[in-house]
Parts: sequence; structure tokens; C-alpha cells
Amino acid sequence: MTEQYRILIQCNDEKGLVYKVSSIFYHRHLNILSNNEFVDKNYNKFFMRSVVSGEADMEALRNELLAVLPSNAHLEVIAPRKKRIVLMVTKESHALGDILIRYEAGELDAIIVGVVSNYDVLEPLVSKFEIPFYTVSHEGLERDVHEQKVLECLNSFGDIDYIVLAKYMRILTPRFVNAYADKIINIHHSFLPAFIGANPYKQAYERGVKIIGATAHFVNNDLDEGPIIAQDVIHVDHAYGWEDMQRSGRDGEKIVLSRALKLALEDRVFVHSNRTVIF
Amino acid sequence: MTEQYRILIQCNDEKGLVYKVSSIFYHRHLNILSNNEFVDKNYNKFFMRSVVSGEADMEALRNELLAVLPSNAHLEVIAPRKKRIVLMVTKESHALGDILIRYEAGELDAIIVGVVSNYDVLEPLVSKFEIPFYTVSHEGLERDVHEQKVLECLNSFGDIDYIVLAKYMRILTPRFVNAYADKIINIHHSFLPAFIGANPYKQAYERGVKIIGATAHFVNNDLDEGPIIAQDVIHVDHAYGWEDMQRSGRDGEKIVLSRALKLALEDRVFVHSNRTVIF
Amino acid sequence: MTEQYRILIQCNDEKGLVYKVSSIFYHRHLNILSNNEFVDKNYNKFFMRSVVSGEADMEALRNELLAVLPSNAHLEVIAPRKKRIVLMVTKESHALGDILIRYEAGELDAIIVGVVSNYDVLEPLVSKFEIPFYTVSHEGLERDVHEQKVLECLNSFGDIDYIVLAKYMRILTPRFVNAYADKIINIHHSFLPAFIGANPYKQAYERGVKIIGATAHFVNNDLDEGPIIAQDVIHVDHAYGWEDMQRSGRDGEKIVLSRALKLALEDRVFVHSNRTVIF
Amino acid sequence: MTEQYRILIQCNDEKGLVYKVSSIFYHRHLNILSNNEFVDKNYNKFFMRSVVSGEADMEALRNELLAVLPSNAHLEVIAPRKKRIVLMVTKESHALGDILIRYEAGELDAIIVGVVSNYDVLEPLVSKFEIPFYTVSHEGLERDVHEQKVLECLNSFGDIDYIVLAKYMRILTPRFVNAYADKIINIHHSFLPAFIGANPYKQAYERGVKIIGATAHFVNNDLDEGPIIAQDVIHVDHAYGWEDMQRSGRDGEKIVLSRALKLALEDRVFVHSNRTVIF
Repeated sequence: MTEQYRILIQCNDEKGLVYKVSSIFYHRHLNILSNNEFVDKNYNKFFMRSVVSGEADMEALRNELLAVLPSNAHLEVIAPRKKRIVLMVTKESHALGDILIRYEAGELDAIIVGVVSNYDVLEPLVSKFEIPFYTVSHEGLERDVHEQKVLECLNSFGDIDYIVLAKYMRILTPRFVNAYADKIINIHHSFLPAFIGANPYKQAYERGVKIIGATAHFVNNDLDEGPIIAQDVIHVDHAYGWEDMQRSGRDGEKIVLSRALKLALEDRVFVHSNRTVIF
Repeated sequence: MTEQYRILIQCNDEKGLVYKVSSIFYHRHLNILSNNEFVDKNYNKFFMRSVVSGEADMEALRNELLAVLPSNAHLEVIAPRKKRIVLMVTKESHALGDILIRYEAGELDAIIVGVVSNYDVLEPLVSKFEIPFYTVSHEGLERDVHEQKVLECLNSFGDIDYIVLAKYMRILTPRFVNAYADKIINIHHSFLPAFIGANPYKQAYERGVKIIGATAHFVNNDLDEGPIIAQDVIHVDHAYGWEDMQRSGRDGEKIVLSRALKLALEDRVFVHSNRTVIF
Repeated sequence: MTEQYRILIQCNDEKGLVYKVSSIFYHRHLNILSNNEFVDKNYNKFFMRSVVSGEADMEALRNELLAVLPSNAHLEVIAPRKKRIVLMVTKESHALGDILIRYEAGELDAIIVGVVSNYDVLEPLVSKFEIPFYTVSHEGLERDVHEQKVLECLNSFGDIDYIVLAKYMRILTPRFVNAYADKIINIHHSFLPAFIGANPYKQAYERGVKIIGATAHFVNNDLDEGPIIAQDVIHVDHAYGWEDMQRSGRDGEKIVLSRALKLALEDRVFVHSNRTVIF
Repeated sequence: MTEQYRILIQCNDEKGLVYKVSSIFYHRHLNILSNNEFVDKNYNKFFMRSVVSGEADMEALRNELLAVLPSNAHLEVIAPRKKRIVLMVTKESHALGDILIRYEAGELDAIIVGVVSNYDVLEPLVSKFEIPFYTVSHEGLERDVHEQKVLECLNSFGDIDYIVLAKYMRILTPRFVNAYADKIINIHHSFLPAFIGANPYKQAYERGVKIIGATAHFVNNDLDEGPIIAQDVIHVDHAYGWEDMQRSGRDGEKIVLSRALKLALEDRVFVHSNRTVIF
């Protein structure tokens, strides 16, 4: 039975990688449906994403590929499946809603196993879509204690491929981030690295900018400093107060976050050196 | 004989301003060709730019308008004329060249009285257009001494409406900036306030951004912190090294700078509170 | 008690209009919160939208304004209220969903009185938001008969300010369009006037374009030829098949339609000569 | 001595192409610097552009590659060299000037062997850059006779890689187009396929669009119907008359044309089925 596989390779660059990898595909009668390669010369890194079709013994394919790749190569052989994702939100519904509508339409190759929030404001919206909603209030709790409760909630879901911070307005500690390294996608409501931190629209207004932005990125331990997946901008003018910027900016936020999520779900995003390679 | 006048008003907001101003136009038989108003509620400031046609005793019109405006109103009654501008450059030709081609085509309502540079690299290009070129080398000179020589060169031009820093890669001291307050237009090769300072493309590359930008702004005493006139962006991806960003970014830089210059030449830019109102 | 009013004026241009109108506002102690004017010189038309606050006898204000305006002036004095809108859809949920999420968040100054569709596919989605859904199937019916049934359905809603065609994939006859002149907002999934008619993404793919677009416009009797309210574009490349264009294009469609709807709800759109003036 | 070569392959798709080609590179000790492949499934076409470095007997490499490629494969093995281009213009200087400034800065990997125009208006500008300018006036001449004279002028230049129509405002006959198939790059001042033909800005104004565009394309025998290389857009509003659209649109035109020219000079553009694949 013909299946499709995604093969992701990230390793030090050396001569003959394309030849060696494509040779394995060829001799295993795997047909290349699409193929992307990139060499980052500054870091001497090779990246390759191939989609192949055919019959594959995935373990054997994996071993054969590892045998020709440089040591320390990062290799994934993936039989596409619905990824399991959790959404985290606070009070704003636009980014969440955009994902829910796409989810309902079958546009996302994922299962939303739950939505976690520090408020119950968005429970009515989420409930409409018959997705479990978990309120883990932070009120009266130390940051660590609250986060521990959130982590327990997440643990209860079993395996999670991605956590999507769809306007979750709390800072995560290194403990949390390390538990889900390169698995947490955040939308920051500015054109990073401009306006890191709280209330970027107010900052943008104060600075008198003519363009506002939105940035989807993986979360690491430096606030708003993680690898950028997608960005977009919206033009504004002097008539925009900061609330107007916020209102208009939401359109950018939700589209950029959904775009980043889809790239991740399709295994198109490689992370290295605090940057992304996207095929 | 029918003339056109631009009337620019900037003052504290109060009731009846539009009525009082338009009443003066009406009774003086000045026809409004275009009219823009804006109230910045955060600062309680009123801005108005009217283009009127008719016969006007400019001094009398000015006095009549001042009589109905709040005290401390900033008023300009302008009979359009070619503004006198100076370009300052270092070694890159793209922003300069864009202005020269527009100038040659008669697109700019200005006279370029001279081009000043700390290198002679661009003299051959400027000479083609029969515009005086002045090399004021900074080599072997203290910053203050060099700047004094540049100021003397500028003084020799007589009245100057705008100084356009078309990729002039030296920092100006407060003495220079104060001598030409709100008259110096700079192009910064990033999406400010991201990547202030030296080599923004390298900074952008290091940060792994997916969009680069350009910002035209008036120069004040804080590096790259002056009022923003125009901004634009260009999409990039992981395949862009910083030199690629620089190459692509130049297209944005030159268009944004020329757009800002044209807005200034048409008296469309108001400055207040480190921001601009643009009609 | 202080209220806000929107005053919309559209008339032949003549001298003194700003003066005469602002004089009435001034003498009635109405404070101008925002004011936009435009003269279309090609058509000799004057447009003005003022937002004023104060106490107004709306009928008296209306009459006083009409007395100073040219004959045949189109004048509206509006005390803002939630507008009543109907959505019409077929099977795609993205544009509908975008409006529903905004509606739920209180972002739209409107009441959705119902959703009408020629299929029942989207009933489950609409029902989540407790909005009445009406299936008026076209199957087995002549176009006129079906449309008559839709019109009857619409009539049952009472007054309607706007009908939003959120991907309603049926052509309306002149009878329908005339019944709701300048009240029907459609989203066309191309950058009009390119790719009028059926399956614009397929047309765009066939033509090998590098950019696709979306256009929100009022519907008139010429297919996809009505006054344009808003447009936006999305960059594509050779790797996009027409279904990929469709998928990506949906993001543009929904944002453009929602933007046009908000402009209409805020009374910012003037229509004349098959074009719009938007303040 | 290490050289760089560009290998361009366009052929029917079949299994093992990447393997076979990369195998040849590997065994000839050619290092892949960059590699792009694309399969157009709708047309069953395979496209590949590789940049390799090493020592190559180009003729032998060519033959070895042809031996493993499907029959009728289109193959080019290119040792990069400055391409020879001719610019054709009428009266507008913006697109021409943009190319000249880039040329002077060494940004274009090309030699401009001459500029041909049906008017002498732009001769002074071109002369500044010491590039031969040829006026071939069309006045009083039948189209065929004029074109014959232009062709003779072009023939006098020897080999030409690309003819760039930088706002050449005359229609070319099939004889001309066939003589330089896939070698003529035109900038059309609209977002094709909207507004084909004369004065697209006037057409755009009449239609009341909110976005204008520019399209660079190869010229074929259907007016403005050739394969599109690059497009971009500029936002406009109701205040833009058609001359304003034209003025603003020029910025888009020149940037899009220069971008398309650079893509062509870098051998990044494949043409098939009236569309382009761009790496």
C-alpha cells in the first residue's frame, strides 16, 4: 500500500548529501513528491525536507539514512498523522477563534486536545466547539504554584506535539519552557524585536510608528526572543490611537499565528541557532 | 491673478476652529481645494492643512487667522515655491540615485543646491547631473572639527529647507541637529525602533527576522529616535544572508526616503511630541 | 444629555460648503470630534463626514443643513445604533466564521438577524452562536422562484441595513439587487477586475499570476462590477496549485470582507459613480 | 581552478531524476552550492537549478547529464558571465533610471550594450552614463517599416541575452517577438490580467480600485499575456486621480522590473506553458 512519508534532515554540511539521500530513496523505490534543501553557509548546516511516496520499512529507512549522514545528524522519518495540540489563552478571542473556525472546517491537520486558560472568559466560545476547556486560575497563587498546576493539566493530556499560546498573557518560566522545548508557539503582538514585553501597541503608539506587526515564534527562555516562524505587518497612520492599533493589529496576529501553526503541523519548520528554516 | 496657498495650522484644540478658519477663507473669497483636519485627543492638539486658491494678501490673511486661533498657534501661510534642499551621502548610491532620477524628471518640487559627502566616491554620479558635490573628508579629524567643516559648507548654500541624509553614515552631534531642527530627514535601514544603531541588517540577520524594513524620520538628538515620517517592509526568508537583506532592503530604503521627501516638500508633515501627522 | 451624531453629506461642490456646515455646528454648540472632507474634482462632488457631540434636535439640524446645501444634496444625520445585518452563505465557513467570532467578541456594531443559505452545511456552525439559520434550497427550483423564496425570507426579518454575502455562491438577479441597492456587500475572491466570474483561483492559476487578491464591493447589476470598498492581496509562487491559492486566498477574503463590513457599519463609505469614498 | 556553474534542467518528470543528476555532480567532484527542484504535477514537468563549484569539462558534463535525462529535456550548463542586454524606452525615465543607477553601482551582472527609443527625450539621461543611445523615430513610418529599423538597430549589437522594455510604449509585432522569444522582458503598469492594453491607470481609476499594480513579464504574441515574472501592488484611495495613480505606480513599476531583470540575469526563471517557475 502506497504511503507518504516526510523525511527531515538537519546536519553538518558535507559533499554528496543530496546524492546519498536521493540514492537511498531511489533504490528503495520511493518517489520524491517534493524536495527542499538549504545550506546555511554561516553555520555550515544542511537542511532537507523530502516528501516521498511508496512502501517503506520506516525503521530500515531511518537506519540506512543515518548510516550515510554525518554523525549528530538530526533525522525524522514521519508518517503524517494528526498532531495533538493544546491551546492556551487568556481573555481575547480573535486568535483562538481563528483556530477554532479552521479546526471546525477541517483545515488543520491536528486534534485540539484541550484549551487551557487562566480565566474562564473564553469557556463559552470553546464549549461551542465541544473542546475541553480548563480554567487554571492564577489568582492568589505564586507564579510557580500556578504554573505547576498548568503543567499538571497539560500532563493529563498525554502526548502533546505543540502548545499554541493564542494570546496567553502570562510569562512562562524556564521550567515550563524546557519541558516543551521547540513545541510552544507564541504570537507576540508586535514586529519583533521591536516592542518586546508588555503592551506593545502602547509602545508602538508612543513611538509614533507607521506600521505595526505581529510575530509568531517558538518560545525560549528569553522573553520574546525565540526563533521567529512568521511575521506580518499592518499600515497605520496618525489617526490611530493605541486601541485602534490593537484592534487592527488583531487581524495580523491571528493570521500570522494560524500560518505558523500550519507550517509546524506540516513539519516545514527547522530550528537552529535561534532561527528557523522554513520549507 | 489666482494663486494657490497652503495654510498649515497646529494649535491647542478648541471648539469652532474649523468654522472660524473656513469663515475667513469664505469671506476672503478663497476657494478650498483640499482640506484636512485632525484632532489628536491624547494631546488635545488640532492640525489643519488647507490648500486654497484666490487672491490673498498673505500678511493680512496671516494676521486674521492668528486673531481667531488660540495663542501659541503655529501658523504657516505658504505660496508654494521650489524648496532648497541639500543631500548628504557617504558611499552608497541607491537612495541618492533615486532622488537624482526623480529630480531630473522634474518630479521633485525642489532645487538640490548641493550634495555633501565625507567621501568622494559618489562625485562622478552627482556630476553627471550637474549638481555641485562637496567632499568634506572626516579622515584624521575629530568629530567636532569635521562637523564644523560640514556646517560651514552648508552655511555657504544660504537658506536650506531640508537636509536629506541619503545614507550618510555618520552620527550628527546635537549642535548640528539643533541648527536644523525638524529640517533633517534621515533614512534608517531598519523597521524602527527595531535595530537602532550600526549595521541593522546584520542585527536583523542575527535575530532571524522574516521581514526587514526601512524608516524615514526627522533627526533629533537621540540616535534613530526622531519622529517617523514613513516606513515600509520587505519579506525575506532563511535563504537571505545579511548582505542579501542589505541588497533587497535598499529598494525599500530608497522608496521610503523619496516618499518622505515628497511629503515634506508638499508641506504635508506636521511634527509634535516626537510623532508626525501626515495629510 | 450629550450624544454623538454622524453627519454625512454628498452634494455638488460649491464655494463655502465647509464654512456653512461648520457654522451650523458651531452655532448649535455641536463639537466636531472628527471631520473629513473630499472634493472629487472629476465629478465636481463634495463629500463630508462629521462626527459631532452635543445636544441636537435632529430634525431641526437636518433642515438647517439642507437649507445651506445645494439642491439634490444627499444628507444623513445619524444617531449611531446597532445596524441590522443578514449574512448569506453557501458552504464555505471562513468568511462567515470570521464575522461570527468578531460578533461574539462584540467587535461589530450590529445585530445579525439571521443567516440565509442555499445549503444547510453551515447550520451547525451558526447554531453554536444562537443566530437563526434559514436554509432556502435552490435544488429543483428555477432561479427566479428560488430568489423569490430568499426575498420572502429576508422580508420576514423586517428592516435590514446590510446584506453580507459571505461567500454566497449564487448570482443575484436585478430584482434582488434593486431591492437592496447599495446595501449588499459581497466578497469576490480575486483582485477585481481581474478574474470576474466563476472560479477566479483557477483562472489565476491558469494565468500564472504571482499575487492573488480579494475584493469587497457593493453589488450592482453587473456581475462583480459594483463599487469597490476594500481590496487586499497575497503573494503566491509557482508551487501554488489553484487549491493552494484558494486556501491561502481565504485569509485575504475574510479579512477584506470584515474590514469592508466595519467601514459600512461606521457609516464611512460613500458611493457615487460606481466608486466609493471612504473616510 | 575552481569555477561556479549553473545547471538548469527542465524535462518531463520521472523517478530518480534528483538521484541521477546529483550522482553525476558527486562523481565529478562538483560541490552543490545551492539546489532547487520543483515538480509541476499538473504538467508532469520537472525543474531543477543547481549551482555547483569545481572543475568541469562543460561539454562532457552536458553530455553525461543529457544521457540520464528524459529525451526532449531542456538543459543548460552555464559558466556565469555578464549578460548582454538592450533597453528600449519611450519618454518616461523612472524604470530606465532605476536600471541605470543599479548598473552604475555594479549591481547588475550585465552589460547594457545600448538603449533604443522611438524618441530622443531620454538621450541626455542615457548619455550621462556613457551608454550608446539610438533614436529610431516612428514618425511618418508604417509600423512594419519602423520595426524593421529597430530590428536592424538591434542586430547591429551582436548577441543579445535580454531586451528590457523599460516603458517602451509601442506594441511589438509577432515578427519582432519571435525573433527574441523568451528574451523580451516588459513592465506593464497594472496588476495583470487586470487592465490589459492602453492607459491602465485610467482604466484603474475608472473602475475605482483600491490597489494598483505592476507586472513584469516575458512578451509573447498576445498583448500583455506573456509569462509573468514578478508583480507588486500599491495601495491607493479615493483621493487618487489617475495621474496620482500613475505617479505612485511608477515606484512599483521600476522596482518590479528591476527585480525581474535580476532574476533573469541570475538564470532563475524557467518558462513553460505561459507561466514561470522561479528559484
